[in-house]
Amino acid sequence: MNRTAALEQILHSEIPISRAMGIRVTYYDGTSLKLDAPLAPNTNHKSTAFGGSLYSLAVLSGWGLLHLKLADARIHKHIVIQESGIRYLHPVEHDLHAECHVDDAAFNRFLLTLKRHGRARISLAAVITRDHLTAVEFSGRYVVHG
Amino acid sequence: MNRTAALEQILHSEIPISRAMGIRVTYYDGTSLKLDAPLAPNTNHKSTAFGGSLYSLAVLSGWGLLHLKLADARIHKHIVIQESGIRYLHPVEHDLHAECHVDDAAFNRFLLTLKRHGRARISLAAVITRDHLTAVEFSGRYVVHG
Repeated sequence: MNRTAALEQILHSEIPISRAMGIRVTYYDGTSLKLDAPLAPNTNHKSTAFGGSLYSLAVLSGWGLLHLKLADARIHKHIVIQESGIRYLHPVEHDLHAECHVDDAAFNRFLLTLKRHGRARISLAAVITRDHLTAVEFSGRYVVHG
Repeated sequence: MNRTAALEQILHSEIPISRAMGIRVTYYDGTSLKLDAPLAPNTNHKSTAFGGSLYSLAVLSGWGLLHLKLADARIHKHIVIQESGIRYLHPVEHDLHAECHVDDAAFNRFLLTLKRHGRARISLAAVITRDHLTAVEFSGRYVVHG
């Protein structure tokens, strides 16, 4: 099974609401992760994407990216969201597309701290796009510990 | 039908993920609204509440409170979340309980702006409690417009 399918299976089995949301893991290249979800189960009273679903997709794009990058580094630890902020810039009227990216320098600093202290924090930014527009900006601080 | 049951029906029919989460509206007294959700559909890889579900419950406690308070004032407008922040202080191992409160002075200022300009913003804080502990702090800025 490839990396994205394996992550999708983990999300669906361990976080059941991700299955109810119809989340799919569509892309991973070692520094970026993309998640999708259909609009229908994630709609709100205005027939656009529900703010809570947009948040869940964004927070899981960061969680999933860390999960895969730590597995790449043969590290198996707990990943927990500590705090986050989200800005809704435009309504999302179609399927939801989230992308989280981490640059190598930031990840390597985080990895060094993690190896040294067994615990480290990293801030990740994710966006949800609509056509070529940034519809939602998310920033989350994750803690990784043993 | 009482106010809390009516709001619960609106949430379940207009925001389907709130039904998948099992959200229930348990209390409204004119200044506070309480929402519950069972842990099982909202669990994560650590068998505690998923951060996205905690966020969704919190953001809907603010949305629901505004919905009921505006209905009390005979105002029927769109309520949209604009931006928010959330801090996870302690894991939630049992059912999820969220409470949002608004004080009269802040709401009346907001209502005055809304009546004058047809559009207004209000910041609401919500907490998710575990036993007698604040497990999650949420703050959201909502926009109400015609």
